[in-house]
Amino acid sequence: MVTKNELKYIRRLNNKSERIKNNQFVVEGEKSIKDFLSSDYKLKKLFSTHPEDFNLYEITEKISSSQLKQISFLKSPNKHLGLFEIKNKELKKDSQYILIDSINDPGNLGTIIRSAEWFGFKQIICSKNSVDCYNPKVVQASMGSLSRVDIIYTDLIEFIKNEKIPIYGTSKDGKSILEFSNNINTGLWIFGSEANGISNDISELCESFYSIPKSNKDILTESLNLSTSVSLIIGYLKFFNRS
Amino acid sequence: MVTKNELKYIRRLNNKSERIKNNQFVVEGEKSIKDFLSSDYKLKKLFSTHPEDFNLYEITEKISSSQLKQISFLKSPNKHLGLFEIKNKELKKDSQYILIDSINDPGNLGTIIRSAEWFGFKQIICSKNSVDCYNPKVVQASMGSLSRVDIIYTDLIEFIKNEKIPIYGTSKDGKSILEFSNNINTGLWIFGSEANGISNDISELCESFYSIPKSNKDILTESLNLSTSVSLIIGYLKFFNRS
Repeated sequence: MVTKNELKYIRRLNNKSERIKNNQFVVEGEKSIKDFLSSDYKLKKLFSTHPEDFNLYEITEKISSSQLKQISFLKSPNKHLGLFEIKNKELKKDSQYILIDSINDPGNLGTIIRSAEWFGFKQIICSKNSVDCYNPKVVQASMGSLSRVDIIYTDLIEFIKNEKIPIYGTSKDGKSILEFSNNINTGLWIFGSEANGISNDISELCESFYSIPKSNKDILTESLNLSTSVSLIIGYLKFFNRS
Repeated sequence: MVTKNELKYIRRLNNKSERIKNNQFVVEGEKSIKDFLSSDYKLKKLFSTHPEDFNLYEITEKISSSQLKQISFLKSPNKHLGLFEIKNKELKKDSQYILIDSINDPGNLGTIIRSAEWFGFKQIICSKNSVDCYNPKVVQASMGSLSRVDIIYTDLIEFIKNEKIPIYGTSKDGKSILEFSNNINTGLWIFGSEANGISNDISELCESFYSIPKSNKDILTESLNLSTSVSLIIGYLKFFNRS
């Protein structure tokens, strides 16, 4: 039997401080839970309206649909809700990095994680003030990719200063990415928030800035969605630059 | 003085049927409202905590921050909320179209509108069962681009059958977009929902299918976010295909 206290506890995991205190986060839906089960994340407890889908009875609590509704962070709750343990992640040395400065929107971070996996990145480096990757909306938007892409929170300035590879900023005033003619496989690519761009102290460390060109100068929209921009730049670096 | 009935009326505009009945929709925030004011949409009424920002006193109702909180569809209400008139839109003949089949997610549609404008599209064709473009979340995610890109709801099959240009579907089982070798400036590009793809009866009308390649076959994620996919395909067609 699931207790009222357990239901309350799960709701509290919407807050970062509660997730850190308890070292747990929520994953919902059969597909995402299976993705995390196949990774090195550890399932602590499963709340499920259909326990037979998983066959993990020792750690499963059967719950009713109305109880699932109470604890779910989704609009349409999806049969299963798993509590996973937050894992320790270590930065892996690489020749190409995605760095995100001060990202707030959880849906954007989740979508970036999904695109990053698609284009072969195994980690994303975020500034410490960025939204937590275990926020339920990030987990949801990543559609399982969070189980395979590590999000590393660190002091971006320290990180950049310790790297010897070229440092590229993205900015609406930057050169067109189509003009990028350096080695496309090496570099540290920094993206700022939609509202403020890359912070000044980090901008100072960039050797050059790039942007995604508009169809023509008269187009009035001022920026793309952040996850769209990241996807277009890394997609371009990985695939579309065939010249 | 804003009345209780007015506040209730605005909340009801979250529903499509109420928007249609009253021929009005909500735009929030100074920038988006200015974008719509510069377009051929007509402002009917402005509710504002800072009427001096707009100087439209005849149709402005000064409201308090707490009243704005009651009517706003945003997490952080942004000083102004405008009621605009829904306008009649007519399909414009073009050589390249974006068609969206059965899109549900308002954030995705808003982001697609924003990217479409960036890459030079002035209209998007959606199936009739797609999310309404005047849904407050679509308006918000489009960041003003909805004022400049027309969303046309129509019977996609009828539309496709009446067009003489090539019809391309997008599908995860399609050929890599990098192999696309036809005229990149002519075509009708169809995108389906993330969950179900393009419906069968529409798929039958496509002459070929394309996809965005993964970095390698072993990558486990099964799909990209829909707005990301649309942006990558149209970005590729407009810019990145330089061979």
